[in-house]
Amino acid sequence: MQPTNPIITLLTDFGESDGYVGTMKGVLLDIAPQAQLVDLSHLIPPQDVKQAAFVLMAAVPYFPDGAIHLIVVDPGVGSARRPIAVETPTARYVAPDNGVLTYVLAQADFYSVVELANPTYRLSEVSTTFHGRDIFSPAAAHLAAGVPLRELGPAVETPVLFDLPRLEVGKDRIDGEVLRVDHFGNIRTSIYHLTWEDAATLSLRPGFSPSPPEPAARFSAPKAQVSVGPLTLQRIEETFSSVDIGQPVAFVGSEGGLEIGINQGNAAREYGVKAGDSVSLHFTT
Amino acid sequence: MQPTNPIITLLTDFGESDGYVGTMKGVLLDIAPQAQLVDLSHLIPPQDVKQAAFVLMAAVPYFPDGAIHLIVVDPGVGSARRPIAVETPTARYVAPDNGVLTYVLAQADFYSVVELANPTYRLSEVSTTFHGRDIFSPAAAHLAAGVPLRELGPAVETPVLFDLPRLEVGKDRIDGEVLRVDHFGNIRTSIYHLTWEDAATLSLRPGFSPSPPEPAARFSAPKAQVSVGPLTLQRIEETFSSVDIGQPVAFVGSEGGLEIGINQGNAAREYGVKAGDSVSLHFTT
Amino acid sequence: MQPTNPIITLLTDFGESDGYVGTMKGVLLDIAPQAQLVDLSHLIPPQDVKQAAFVLMAAVPYFPDGAIHLIVVDPGVGSARRPIAVETPTARYVAPDNGVLTYVLAQADFYSVVELANPTYRLSEVSTTFHGRDIFSPAAAHLAAGVPLRELGPAVETPVLFDLPRLEVGKDRIDGEVLRVDHFGNIRTSIYHLTWEDAATLSLRPGFSPSPPEPAARFSAPKAQVSVGPLTLQRIEETFSSVDIGQPVAFVGSEGGLEIGINQGNAAREYGVKAGDSVSLHFTT
Repeated sequence: MQPTNPIITLLTDFGESDGYVGTMKGVLLDIAPQAQLVDLSHLIPPQDVKQAAFVLMAAVPYFPDGAIHLIVVDPGVGSARRPIAVETPTARYVAPDNGVLTYVLAQADFYSVVELANPTYRLSEVSTTFHGRDIFSPAAAHLAAGVPLRELGPAVETPVLFDLPRLEVGKDRIDGEVLRVDHFGNIRTSIYHLTWEDAATLSLRPGFSPSPPEPAARFSAPKAQVSVGPLTLQRIEETFSSVDIGQPVAFVGSEGGLEIGINQGNAAREYGVKAGDSVSLHFTT
Repeated sequence: MQPTNPIITLLTDFGESDGYVGTMKGVLLDIAPQAQLVDLSHLIPPQDVKQAAFVLMAAVPYFPDGAIHLIVVDPGVGSARRPIAVETPTARYVAPDNGVLTYVLAQADFYSVVELANPTYRLSEVSTTFHGRDIFSPAAAHLAAGVPLRELGPAVETPVLFDLPRLEVGKDRIDGEVLRVDHFGNIRTSIYHLTWEDAATLSLRPGFSPSPPEPAARFSAPKAQVSVGPLTLQRIEETFSSVDIGQPVAFVGSEGGLEIGINQGNAAREYGVKAGDSVSLHFTT
Repeated sequence: MQPTNPIITLLTDFGESDGYVGTMKGVLLDIAPQAQLVDLSHLIPPQDVKQAAFVLMAAVPYFPDGAIHLIVVDPGVGSARRPIAVETPTARYVAPDNGVLTYVLAQADFYSVVELANPTYRLSEVSTTFHGRDIFSPAAAHLAAGVPLRELGPAVETPVLFDLPRLEVGKDRIDGEVLRVDHFGNIRTSIYHLTWEDAATLSLRPGFSPSPPEPAARFSAPKAQVSVGPLTLQRIEETFSSVDIGQPVAFVGSEGGLEIGINQGNAAREYGVKAGDSVSLHFTT
């Protein structure tokens, strides 16, 4: 049974000036008039599949089961890369097969993948440059209208997945990388529950766990020195307001990852930090 | 009785790049699937509570009675500041208790306030940095789904209100301040019906009134010299096109406040004016 | 019969920071609570009617028949320019009568136009500066709620239309202009099906046609040299990925117009090209 108002979220690098996103919504509502459309972001840097993967991962757990997530960050549009749809126990995805689902699928117990090959569920004319409109939106809308995943095309054995971000766990330190700088200039890192699955030693340390996040307890080591760019902080605080306005602060972010910010300021700009930079956590019990 | 499709508006300083707003919408639709979600703005300058208060005030009167306005501009997230919900005769608000409701509440005949303390109406896990997702969105959604305000938590005697903007009424002049520069570069000032409540002398002057706005008649003094930054204008015009393209113009804005613009140009940029600058109106009958 | 959830799209130059668009949505939902609201763009450069006309033209064909398109790019607000509503066989429009509908109406077989003069379908107070809120939104919402076009006001004989963009068809060349630079830096030109109606000679050339677009076949001339700004390309390719990453490419865009881009790069920035610049296509069979 389909929900009365199925949710379709949209995540693209299309920007907000051109009407491209609006055009996709026209296609979606033409096929699935009852759909509830929710924008995740259209300001992913052009072609930056990893940034999209991260934004997607943070948002998806807060949507009702069965929500459909439509992602069009697609540097390979018109090339041989496959368009796919994926179903997990809690969510559905429609996206180019370029790794953008890597983080959400790393958290799924199992999933099915199909290639969007059935012309019945594409627009009648398919351009070479706007598959978001001609292939991905129709597929998402037909899913919302009740078409089963398997109707969209043949099964795909192995979707493209890229490597999980750097996370090296040593005896008394963890090395990771900056995954994203957010709108506030907060520095979001890979020192995160997602990538701890393979870090069994962490479960020995009180408060660390590879299982789903309990943010407050996570980094409860007595002393944890955090370093990123030119900045070194001597402890992890509970929240921004644990420090004075204008002061830097390391804290466990709202999805359970280590973040560095400035209380009411912009840490990334202040310290010149960007995605890909190294971050480390050094324990001194 | 709840409307079939209750409206929830969203006003934040979250920007549009990160998916934070989308995440809040996931929470809202999970609890209140029939809600109609409307973005007011997510581009409030970070932590700028007063700018949010002003944008909110301008938009609220145009929504149907009972609409729920969810505001998350929250420099004190994680600190002792209370999360609150407020009900007036015509609208409902969910926001941090930091003064962001000052302008809308100054115009309400009466209102009730509660603290969002009831854990039933929060997410099961509450982070220290994203109360928009974990506390404010669930509260707004439960209101939309029919939960009465009093269920959300205990009554709050006095919400935080900040001072109304500068507005000094003299014998032949009014001194105020710039409240906001809008997307077009129009300069929006505090010489405005909202703050005229205490300016009894104004009611003596034809066209001035502390009561709700009748924009066209408002500033009908025979001669009114307007000064802001380096600019002095000798009269208030009816609208932009009362002057030539490229020329500056003072006029009564669409909510009844004094504004200064350039016909098809950007006044704030041209004259270097920003929020907080002084503005004066000098009458020479 | 009205659809259950009539669609109203919004296209403005209001930006996204001020809440002006949100205010219009409040008016729309107050009158037409079941409307589905879709943003096309609010980042049209201020007062740039031609850019709005182009964005509108690209999006409209992908919406269901009967969708209502509300456009507020209105440099003449408060002046004598008329507010109008237009009905074509497939769509409805509410806009200032300033030519913003030129491109969509050039493609319509016939249409009816009325002036939004009936005060019943305006807000009770009409400001001189925000007709989007006070005149255009109420009209669009009443159309969505089932009011027939003719009720909104008297018929308008001839709406304002501006000249179609430059497109000169010579013996072995076509000269046109750049219509828009999109978010990705792709250069979108007037060498486009829309303006080919008067170019009968084109139908002699295989692959060219004044009729609705078949993008793939369109520019199938054996050799076609494309010039824009400092750039000359020796052929038209199928899509971005026909060339190496970082290389420039001319291709037929997703609505059938000639475009120039860089595979995973920003062509307009790289070559310093902007709207209004000349573009030419030179055939060497």
